[in-house]
Amino acid sequence: MKVTHRGLLLAVSASLMYLSMAASVSAAPFQALQPLPKQPPIPQDNPMSRAKVALGQQLFFDPRLSVTGTHSCNTCHNVMAGGEDGRAVSIGVNGKPGPRGAPTVWNAAFSTVLYRDGRAVSLEDQVKTHLLSATEMGMPNEQAVVARIAAIPGYVSQFTKVFGGAEAVSYTNIAKAIATYERTLVTPDSAYDRYLRGDKRAISAQAKRGLDEFQKVQCVSCHFWVNMAGPVPGLAFQMGEGFYELFPNYKGSTYEQQYQLADDLGRYNVTGIESDRRMWRVTGLRNVSVTAPYFHNGTVKKLGEAVRVMGKTQLNVDLTDQQVQDITVFLDTLTGKFPEQKMPRLPLTPNGSVIDPPLQ
Amino acid sequence: MKVTHRGLLLAVSASLMYLSMAASVSAAPFQALQPLPKQPPIPQDNPMSRAKVALGQQLFFDPRLSVTGTHSCNTCHNVMAGGEDGRAVSIGVNGKPGPRGAPTVWNAAFSTVLYRDGRAVSLEDQVKTHLLSATEMGMPNEQAVVARIAAIPGYVSQFTKVFGGAEAVSYTNIAKAIATYERTLVTPDSAYDRYLRGDKRAISAQAKRGLDEFQKVQCVSCHFWVNMAGPVPGLAFQMGEGFYELFPNYKGSTYEQQYQLADDLGRYNVTGIESDRRMWRVTGLRNVSVTAPYFHNGTVKKLGEAVRVMGKTQLNVDLTDQQVQDITVFLDTLTGKFPEQKMPRLPLTPNGSVIDPPLQ
Repeated sequence: MKVTHRGLLLAVSASLMYLSMAASVSAAPFQALQPLPKQPPIPQDNPMSRAKVALGQQLFFDPRLSVTGTHSCNTCHNVMAGGEDGRAVSIGVNGKPGPRGAPTVWNAAFSTVLYRDGRAVSLEDQVKTHLLSATEMGMPNEQAVVARIAAIPGYVSQFTKVFGGAEAVSYTNIAKAIATYERTLVTPDSAYDRYLRGDKRAISAQAKRGLDEFQKVQCVSCHFWVNMAGPVPGLAFQMGEGFYELFPNYKGSTYEQQYQLADDLGRYNVTGIESDRRMWRVTGLRNVSVTAPYFHNGTVKKLGEAVRVMGKTQLNVDLTDQQVQDITVFLDTLTGKFPEQKMPRLPLTPNGSVIDPPLQ
Repeated sequence: MKVTHRGLLLAVSASLMYLSMAASVSAAPFQALQPLPKQPPIPQDNPMSRAKVALGQQLFFDPRLSVTGTHSCNTCHNVMAGGEDGRAVSIGVNGKPGPRGAPTVWNAAFSTVLYRDGRAVSLEDQVKTHLLSATEMGMPNEQAVVARIAAIPGYVSQFTKVFGGAEAVSYTNIAKAIATYERTLVTPDSAYDRYLRGDKRAISAQAKRGLDEFQKVQCVSCHFWVNMAGPVPGLAFQMGEGFYELFPNYKGSTYEQQYQLADDLGRYNVTGIESDRRMWRVTGLRNVSVTAPYFHNGTVKKLGEAVRVMGKTQLNVDLTDQQVQDITVFLDTLTGKFPEQKMPRLPLTPNGSVIDPPLQ
């Protein structure tokens, strides 16, 4: 399904109503704005369990999953913060800034594809590619990752307990455990959610004006549904089916050069298909005010400026200062509650490090 | 006070007994082996409080204290693990391996000096030098660190609450908060501690043989008292007064070249004093079996080999395989209980990252 923003909301609306009717639920009018559920969709082949979440959390925070032993998933997707690293572009094990910024891991489980260019079709797939990327975790191959984890007795016993079988420590199971933990990283109960649920005083008058503008100028035509990023897995779109938009959509604005918005060809780099040039996954707006800087290359530092840029490049609208301020205040209400977590203890290896000497 | 290992235990013993008598406590015979207290010494000018510990924990885990926003204290001193990074030598913000390995932060509060060469006279002092080191956190100067933290409203309110005054966010207070958190990083109740307290079955027969050997061959002449690292602050030595040893003490062993043990001049690099050549702070042995690799340059991968090297280079003893095995099994009983912790939430900055753009 290739879609552009024009008429998309209508198409999805029809699709969702169809799904709704197919499931024999009364077909209420389509509501583009939806509060965030407490749980994201869970794939049938990777059910949740408390033990798997605990294992996945340990792995997520374990720098031994990087070739140098210096980077964990959390290094660039900081769960203690907004789920990313506050940098324009991230720095992996090679010590050099990469080409793009890390998207937040909070609420990532509501995405139908992962990475800004949609090159991973599930959280599990994303973990698998992440570990082997030279500019990220830098592990040489799947076998090396499995060997690292299999050399840590405390992990072996947990994998056996969670997944069973003689081959419990496998690359697939490592990815499954981490993805399972990531599915717990949900930030419900933002002021916006409380507002949608009926608490009319949950957001300010200015935020309400911002929400009106957000809909009137059609930001909502892409940034809708629970994660403000369009369809979620199993609802209108299936996992792996990306909701992409052209960015910049209206070419030639002064912002394009100022912020180098057109230099990266986005999804085209994955598929090589002409029509994928500068197509990007629509970014979720949950917690957007605490995940600066903005866009794939992090060139825009402030949320207000990002709103102004989006108005011009995506909708061909010159937003007024008042509109920008109102929308920004509204977006600030999308910051949810970050659940308290216990700090994991990483299983240790008596009498030797698995990092040094380096793997053969 | 310049001491060598010969006769040191006796000197410290006399000193401790003197202190003991001076404090009008009954002068029990000196016991070189002591269980780990639940709390380390607390300096008078930086008292503990729950709020200060919580603030210090946030700062300890906050990568925004590094110039790139990529490294927190925890990156190299991993509290979720053995308090270090499992690497031979650490990698700082410049992306390159540094000259030495990170010592564990667990029980570091029992040290009279910090860093392997003793160049910091307190935990507070260590934090201050760490943040500005180009090969560690890489911040350009104290003002830049204070500016970073002062730009985060959630920190400003906490500093004001904990330290009071208009200048609550100061370089000294940042260091005080982190040091306060570090003073909670204590691992009591190892099998060895339970053994010392009277539980004769807490350690195995082999570990007991190892403990005997540890004393007979005089490992204990340096590795004694609560942290198995000699004097603790306020007891025999004051803070800032380091307990150093020559390493290698007996020159010319084959290990010296094999593991490049004599290449780094240790404390001499700090003082420039001839007699400080290759002098090193005696390393604590708590949790030693889970903090491989070993020595200042991390060239020795396994604990057994480290024991063998120490026997030869420090005591001129060729330990037998049996002695090495027994001592290693004993050292394994020094792994304590790592207290459960809550994961900190880092205060965020709506509408802008403090990392990017970089500080002016």
